[in-house]
Amino acid sequence: MTDETIGFVGLGIMGAPMAKNLLDAGYTVVGHNRSQEPVDEHVAAGGEAAATPKEAAERADVVIMCLPDSDVVTEVMRADDGVLAGLSGGEIVVDNSTISPTVTEELAEEVRERGANMLDAPISGGETGAIEGTLSIMVGGDEGVLAEVRPILSAMGETVTHCGGNGAGQVTKACNQIVVAGSMVAISEALVFAHKADADLQAVVDAISGGAAGCWALDNRAPDMIRGDFDPGFFASYQYKDLRIATDAGEAYGSPMPQTELAHELYKAMEQTGRGMDDNSGVMQIIEDLAGTEARVDE
Amino acid sequence: MTDETIGFVGLGIMGAPMAKNLLDAGYTVVGHNRSQEPVDEHVAAGGEAAATPKEAAERADVVIMCLPDSDVVTEVMRADDGVLAGLSGGEIVVDNSTISPTVTEELAEEVRERGANMLDAPISGGETGAIEGTLSIMVGGDEGVLAEVRPILSAMGETVTHCGGNGAGQVTKACNQIVVAGSMVAISEALVFAHKADADLQAVVDAISGGAAGCWALDNRAPDMIRGDFDPGFFASYQYKDLRIATDAGEAYGSPMPQTELAHELYKAMEQTGRGMDDNSGVMQIIEDLAGTEARVDE
Repeated sequence: MTDETIGFVGLGIMGAPMAKNLLDAGYTVVGHNRSQEPVDEHVAAGGEAAATPKEAAERADVVIMCLPDSDVVTEVMRADDGVLAGLSGGEIVVDNSTISPTVTEELAEEVRERGANMLDAPISGGETGAIEGTLSIMVGGDEGVLAEVRPILSAMGETVTHCGGNGAGQVTKACNQIVVAGSMVAISEALVFAHKADADLQAVVDAISGGAAGCWALDNRAPDMIRGDFDPGFFASYQYKDLRIATDAGEAYGSPMPQTELAHELYKAMEQTGRGMDDNSGVMQIIEDLAGTEARVDE
Repeated sequence: MTDETIGFVGLGIMGAPMAKNLLDAGYTVVGHNRSQEPVDEHVAAGGEAAATPKEAAERADVVIMCLPDSDVVTEVMRADDGVLAGLSGGEIVVDNSTISPTVTEELAEEVRERGANMLDAPISGGETGAIEGTLSIMVGGDEGVLAEVRPILSAMGETVTHCGGNGAGQVTKACNQIVVAGSMVAISEALVFAHKADADLQAVVDAISGGAAGCWALDNRAPDMIRGDFDPGFFASYQYKDLRIATDAGEAYGSPMPQTELAHELYKAMEQTGRGMDDNSGVMQIIEDLAGTEARVDE
């Protein structure tokens, strides 16, 4: 079933390799991007070009968006030359962006009013996952609609999980970020403390990784953290934005999240101290600022 | 080298099976416990009995303690019939209890004054790990001293990691609990939020377990949490005590730990709401109390 035409809006760091994987899978992909260069590269890779999101939607059976935030997605959907204006009925809009669950619920309703369907389908796995087609895709919306586009999503990601109705994909992505941030902050507090108490930081990491404290961040980030290597990875700025989505949604759904609110404040400090382009594990530096020390192994 | 005699003080849930593993490895183990029944069982299993911690120390080359908290360890060490009074010089005292890093540093100094050596060697892995001899043992103290007792520790645990000087074992155990608690609270906030937002809880767990949010608690506790099964495992009361050790040590060493302080407050609430004997993942119930809901899957 690669005879569908896919409109792809947002050919950025994530979107461009995802569109490329769809081309490689044999789909016709009509790409649009605010700036022109990524569109030219998409065409050079065998894709087609659309001048506006509306045109991409008009020519497509399935419209994929991969955009930075709620405001941009809302603008790209609702503008006069936007996606909604290009829908004639029967299309499926798939939003791979990470945005507010409540905003995506509103947009899904507006898509339904046009006789089409929408899925929120935020992704995790980073640029590497986008390039290698190994993303994890968390989907909210109708299960039957997901079944129709599952082959398309499977061309971009390794794991495609249906998490509930419209918004549930974004809720799941927020849950992901809540847990990631909780572990980043915990590891930061632990390692700065261990350094102050004169323990061997690498030994601490080794000793606790195999048991109940074991986690991805301890395996994949802690060894770099204690060497002061905060190269991204996943930008602290993005984590900050994603935690704001989580805490705003916590407000909207009436779910208290004291630890996540605290993490949000610490990532706000990352932004304010000019460290937004560090990896999100770089939040250790905020704990270090508070402790008046740097927790580093001697090498 | 199983010709050493081991004194073993504290034949509780953890201590009894650990002493049993030492007997099975061929050591002579002189056991003492405040109440008599565990001593009788130890003798029935092939061990010997000491009437006081002092006697256990007098008859031993290596004295192991496995006790509930800093106060009990201090009392067992310093009492007139305590371990310190039984040391004649050259012994090695191994404390498998989880206690304050600063208290263990003081005790190590008092042991040195008697011409003996001490290691702090707190354990993780729970009752199962104690029975099966698969504990993780985090050791602080002199590396040469550790080398002498490593065969003994290896009879009780699978992983024995030297983490630094006296106190570093306790510091590492505190780091372990900081990271465990951070993930338990994060998962709790995420799942209660996901429930309020009407997402499929099992799907949320499945979708985020494979990526950067992946952790032991998500794999081993979350499936029970969303079914309201908070059977221990590791008591919330113990986590509460261990987090107080961590935050007190953070105070002593001057290391701010805002997230861990918050977790400590949430486990205080576990205690105050009569849930101390639940598993430490049961902290989800505190977030549920705050949210006015229970986050459970329909079954």
